[in-house]
Amino acid sequence: MPVVELTLIEGYDAETRTRLGERLTDAVRTVIAAPLDGVTVAIHEVKAESYMRGRQQRQPGKPLADPVDLVRAFLAAMEARDLDGARGFLADDFRMSFPGGAEFGRLEQLVEWARERYRFVRKTYDRFDVTADADGPVVYCFGTLSGEWLDGAAFSGIRFIDRFAIRDGLLADQKVWNDLAESGRRE
Amino acid sequence: MPVVELTLIEGYDAETRTRLGERLTDAVRTVIAAPLDGVTVAIHEVKAESYMRGRQQRQPGKPLADPVDLVRAFLAAMEARDLDGARGFLADDFRMSFPGGAEFGRLEQLVEWARERYRFVRKTYDRFDVTADADGPVVYCFGTLSGEWLDGAAFSGIRFIDRFAIRDGLLADQKVWNDLAESGRRE
Amino acid sequence: MPVVELTLIEGYDAETRTRLGERLTDAVRTVIAAPLDGVTVAIHEVKAESYMRGRQQRQPGKPLADPVDLVRAFLAAMEARDLDGARGFLADDFRMSFPGGAEFGRLEQLVEWARERYRFVRKTYDRFDVTADADGPVVYCFGTLSGEWLDGAAFSGIRFIDRFAIRDGLLADQKVWNDLAESGRRE
Amino acid sequence: MPVVELTLIEGYDAETRTRLGERLTDAVRTVIAAPLDGVTVAIHEVKAESYMRGRQQRQPGKPLADPVDLVRAFLAAMEARDLDGARGFLADDFRMSFPGGAEFGRLEQLVEWARERYRFVRKTYDRFDVTADADGPVVYCFGTLSGEWLDGAAFSGIRFIDRFAIRDGLLADQKVWNDLAESGRRE
Amino acid sequence: MPVVELTLIEGYDAETRTRLGERLTDAVRTVIAAPLDGVTVAIHEVKAESYMRGRQQRQPGKPLADPVDLVRAFLAAMEARDLDGARGFLADDFRMSFPGGAEFGRLEQLVEWARERYRFVRKTYDRFDVTADADGPVVYCFGTLSGEWLDGAAFSGIRFIDRFAIRDGLLADQKVWNDLAESGRRE
Amino acid sequence: MPVVELTLIEGYDAETRTRLGERLTDAVRTVIAAPLDGVTVAIHEVKAESYMRGRQQRQPGKPLADPVDLVRAFLAAMEARDLDGARGFLADDFRMSFPGGAEFGRLEQLVEWARERYRFVRKTYDRFDVTADADGPVVYCFGTLSGEWLDGAAFSGIRFIDRFAIRDGLLADQKVWNDLAESGRRE
Repeated sequence: MPVVELTLIEGYDAETRTRLGERLTDAVRTVIAAPLDGVTVAIHEVKAESYMRGRQQRQPGKPLADPVDLVRAFLAAMEARDLDGARGFLADDFRMSFPGGAEFGRLEQLVEWARERYRFVRKTYDRFDVTADADGPVVYCFGTLSGEWLDGAAFSGIRFIDRFAIRDGLLADQKVWNDLAESGRRE
Repeated sequence: MPVVELTLIEGYDAETRTRLGERLTDAVRTVIAAPLDGVTVAIHEVKAESYMRGRQQRQPGKPLADPVDLVRAFLAAMEARDLDGARGFLADDFRMSFPGGAEFGRLEQLVEWARERYRFVRKTYDRFDVTADADGPVVYCFGTLSGEWLDGAAFSGIRFIDRFAIRDGLLADQKVWNDLAESGRRE
Repeated sequence: MPVVELTLIEGYDAETRTRLGERLTDAVRTVIAAPLDGVTVAIHEVKAESYMRGRQQRQPGKPLADPVDLVRAFLAAMEARDLDGARGFLADDFRMSFPGGAEFGRLEQLVEWARERYRFVRKTYDRFDVTADADGPVVYCFGTLSGEWLDGAAFSGIRFIDRFAIRDGLLADQKVWNDLAESGRRE
Repeated sequence: MPVVELTLIEGYDAETRTRLGERLTDAVRTVIAAPLDGVTVAIHEVKAESYMRGRQQRQPGKPLADPVDLVRAFLAAMEARDLDGARGFLADDFRMSFPGGAEFGRLEQLVEWARERYRFVRKTYDRFDVTADADGPVVYCFGTLSGEWLDGAAFSGIRFIDRFAIRDGLLADQKVWNDLAESGRRE
Repeated sequence: MPVVELTLIEGYDAETRTRLGERLTDAVRTVIAAPLDGVTVAIHEVKAESYMRGRQQRQPGKPLADPVDLVRAFLAAMEARDLDGARGFLADDFRMSFPGGAEFGRLEQLVEWARERYRFVRKTYDRFDVTADADGPVVYCFGTLSGEWLDGAAFSGIRFIDRFAIRDGLLADQKVWNDLAESGRRE
Repeated sequence: MPVVELTLIEGYDAETRTRLGERLTDAVRTVIAAPLDGVTVAIHEVKAESYMRGRQQRQPGKPLADPVDLVRAFLAAMEARDLDGARGFLADDFRMSFPGGAEFGRLEQLVEWARERYRFVRKTYDRFDVTADADGPVVYCFGTLSGEWLDGAAFSGIRFIDRFAIRDGLLADQKVWNDLAESGRRE
């Protein structure tokens, strides 16, 4: 039953407005058990000179790249060991944390660390979840890992989950959990 | 700069309206780089007879328990091994998956499985993230585990993350990842 | 898909707001083939001092008696030959027109005229339709007549339709069509 | 004093929006004795991707042909005995009912029936009223009939009224009342 | 034709909402030649927990004393030579400027200065105008002065105008122009 | 915290919408101590056929020339002694009142009167304030006069204030106060 009306400065593309509609619908439904069909969203656009806050006209906030696309692009670059490409998605103070509490600030550190663990790894994604906290978007993705152990043995179906915090359109933090150790132990 | 106006059938309590305001603000900011101070939310309430969809007055969707509270309560019951209490939070078709791919439908199965792994475990939470997909709210929580191994040795600071899917106010799915195996191996 | 938001000065009762919702829904659907479930109506109420037109606060327009109730009450009084009661529903310049072009301004004239046609008549209603033109509400009702001819023979199932124009909560005009002549001829 | 704001997916032509404004104004005034000048209607349009119900973008409901135009076109075709043209306006399950209770499903039946009543008939319209019920628009029109009796005598000024129910832009039901029998008797 | 809708956190009294309606109407009419009757204002109120800016609930801005009342009260205290009372209306950095360019920060300075000009003076007001700039409300009032010159001769009908700038509900600046010198010269 | 939403018939230029935003912001802040940053204005535009009051589509009220520009242009023409140009800004019943109570209806009268007071005068503006009363916009401007006395002596820094009432885009009334007499006396 809720009706959400969003007023924006005009100029956002269709994809951005679509994502806004989806996010606002989902947001309402984390709090109210409204039937899906009962949630209506309408986005009203006003001209730039028709909006003022604090008696000042404002620049519309830039549409953010879809956080999921950003994460996918970074993970693809990492899988391809395209470190230069991957670095382009990172904030200056990017931090990563990995199983066992390993923490890195630079991708080379991760690559070094991984070299003692497996020859290569690929991710298959079950799902991406997007949310936001007061600081910006957060993306979770989980699924399974496949690849080769150092001894050349193949592995697959190993569960993983990543959490990415995004600030100003860049990845500020990545946290990784997976069952590699668990799986390794079982062999 | 975005202004979000939500129209609801009146009667939601202050806590529910507060959560709606937070979720709607966050939702906008997953898509647009609007400065935090530029996002305004106003919730308009109309009387029950003042709302109609399809020419029918509607029951307002029930406020959902705060998904974070629900998850915390379940996890607290599990830590206290209050299986009866914990079961009260679960949907009939509740499923859990654990490191190594273990999957359970009943809490007793989990307890059994854990018995071979550690004497007890406590969770310390760094953060809860809430989102929703088309089916309902999703809660992530992560932090560290402490407890005792089977041999009585204490452990602490072991990273974990849980993902909960909520349907109709009950937990429908829990997925768990942690570094217990990783940590065990290193010993 | 249309969302209708109506802003009123507060104070209308639930029945009035319900009728507004129904009328507004129907109005949209005379012009757009919107699926019924896609038409949302929300009625916002503001305090009397929170509304101004032309820099003047305004008295809210009185809720009109349901035009159908008004018509039913008048027709019931007429059937009961309670002319005094019936007169209370009539505007000063009330006009009636009847089959064959008979026109009256006073109920006594109608009674006189009817005396040469039947002993009594009862109306069974199939349906009431309400609309409005620029001057006010209009009610149509149709169904069947039953009663007794002057010779005492019973009749029933004779089709009729009435049209009432309402001004300022009173009946200003009644037009009647029916098959009494048709039925009489056939005998 | 009421302000009606309608939010539509953009794209409706000026004539459709004008009719919406008129219908919404009339609708309010069937329920509230608001002075005509006090009823404001504003129609806000949003882009197709800016509207979502149930997290799905929607096709805007097609504008319906003006129900009065539809009825006029059908009645003109009937007067011209253009049965093929007239049939194009009819729903598959179209039903007609005429004075004396005659009921038909096909136009040929009506033509046959009328052949025993008059040589031809023309309608002069005093007024069209449009309303809607939960199933769709309803049009009433009334005025006078002129034409020739079977014996060649001319008639005119004979009162009639028609009621049309419209479903999916086609005539689903026509009900006719008139004073032909009354007038015939008086001769 | 303009419709102004103002959304406020609930709790403002009727007088404040009335003033808001008047000011908003006037504001529109400084820019658009809208007929007075065509300007509609509606003030929607939302609960305190139903409003958020920057993801924070906000205290509603206090209603300001009617700036005209404030100015009237100050001027009345000055006429009555109630300097203590008058001082209560002044900001700490209050400044006055008078004909001939005299500038004062304290009321005693004004009193001293005036002592060489007239025995006493009374103001009769033709009109108060209220406006605001980016810093706060501004009040103009003009009319005529009457009183006694130093030699005991009466004067009256001498034109004056005052301009007051208000900050945080206190008078921050008063500028005075009048025809006292002009009138004195003419004697 | 207030959100002002203005609905207009589309077609106003950016400058007009900007002025509306400023005036509405200022208007709110004459009544409520809202922090400047907390006042949001959004102007929604609807198509001409999407607006109806009293069931009639309306012509949008013409944008008024910026009252300040109008006053500046008139004063510039007067300074340049371009009486024909200045007259173009005046309503038919324009009235002026000057220090000492002099009142004129025609500019020539003013010129004559001034001829006995100074050779010429120039205005330097400190500030323009715009407001409106129920009849239309009002402009105040104040600052200092410079010029030459009749004896050729230069003067400058003499305080003045003008008040202009505007009706239908023309100046209807000018009231002038200044310190010329005061300053003359001091010499």
